[in-house]
Amino acid sequence: MAKPSNRDKLLTEGLRVVHERGFAGAGVRDIVAAAGVPQGSFTNHFASKEAFGLEIINLYFSSSGPMLDSTLRNEALTPLARIRAYVDANIDRLNETGMRNGCLFGNFIAEASEHSEAIRLRIVAILAEMERAIAVCLREAVAARELPPDFGCDEIAAFVMSGLQGAILLAKAQRSPQPMQCFKHTLFAKILNRP
Amino acid sequence: MAKPSNRDKLLTEGLRVVHERGFAGAGVRDIVAAAGVPQGSFTNHFASKEAFGLEIINLYFSSSGPMLDSTLRNEALTPLARIRAYVDANIDRLNETGMRNGCLFGNFIAEASEHSEAIRLRIVAILAEMERAIAVCLREAVAARELPPDFGCDEIAAFVMSGLQGAILLAKAQRSPQPMQCFKHTLFAKILNRP
Repeated sequence: MAKPSNRDKLLTEGLRVVHERGFAGAGVRDIVAAAGVPQGSFTNHFASKEAFGLEIINLYFSSSGPMLDSTLRNEALTPLARIRAYVDANIDRLNETGMRNGCLFGNFIAEASEHSEAIRLRIVAILAEMERAIAVCLREAVAARELPPDFGCDEIAAFVMSGLQGAILLAKAQRSPQPMQCFKHTLFAKILNRP
Repeated sequence: MAKPSNRDKLLTEGLRVVHERGFAGAGVRDIVAAAGVPQGSFTNHFASKEAFGLEIINLYFSSSGPMLDSTLRNEALTPLARIRAYVDANIDRLNETGMRNGCLFGNFIAEASEHSEAIRLRIVAILAEMERAIAVCLREAVAARELPPDFGCDEIAAFVMSGLQGAILLAKAQRSPQPMQCFKHTLFAKILNRP
């Protein structure tokens, strides 16, 4: 395997540091120190901190590919089981850091949407793509009669997406998986079922 | 009316600046400039930026008192109408700044929970207090037969609280009230009703 370049180290370690401390809270100095590369490296590889932010957002999203393949896009599961697996995979990922970090996308929105229009629009596009993947599962659940025929798939997909972001945020606040468990339980007991 | 003191100006203008730019994104220099007070004022009045953060959190929460009195604590409305009024009041408040600012508490959690344990715990306590107010409304809704007798009021109150935070976050991302409208519609159509 090729040795990781300074650019790779800055992205991998920078993503970790920004996820832990926030985008404004993680200075270029902190990122360079975490990556263990020379000071000048950052400006050699990134035109601005905003450009770096966009790259770590894309890195985080592409690293979610395998998780999406084994959950929302996993045709071995029933459509509703895919959504349940997706919520569980989010809980597992948050548990890796004791619920401290939250969702990188949600964190960026909360702190940085006023600072960078490019970052805001990229995150809106990513969240819309995830929401569409949920809507596809819901439509397949209707077709498979797991949900009633008049189920408002697009509206419920948006509700699931925002509910998940809120539960991740409260889990981060409380440092507890409890808000995630509560979200999952209520979602499947009250909404994702056939009355 | 007494002239506002430098301390009052720092709190009022500092709250506005932090709500717009985030806690890490708003420097002491920005806060002092917005308040139009001498540089030294900040350190004269606040032991640290964290101490200042706690004071603006309390100021924001106490400024929500009249809104809570006219919604969640308003006995002139039916219990479920109180919750609907509370969601509407949140939409109105977010609309004042074109959905750009989000919820101060949610923003703090997303960016600052790793930096200050005191701030994290204060926000967890405030959100728990709001969640209890929602749970009280739900229990009164059960008593008034607006909800079925076996309704899990505490769990649904937590679900409402986190769903609201998520909808506020996505409204901020999209700069649109649509996620809030979707949250309200699905909440009342699917959960807060008597099947």
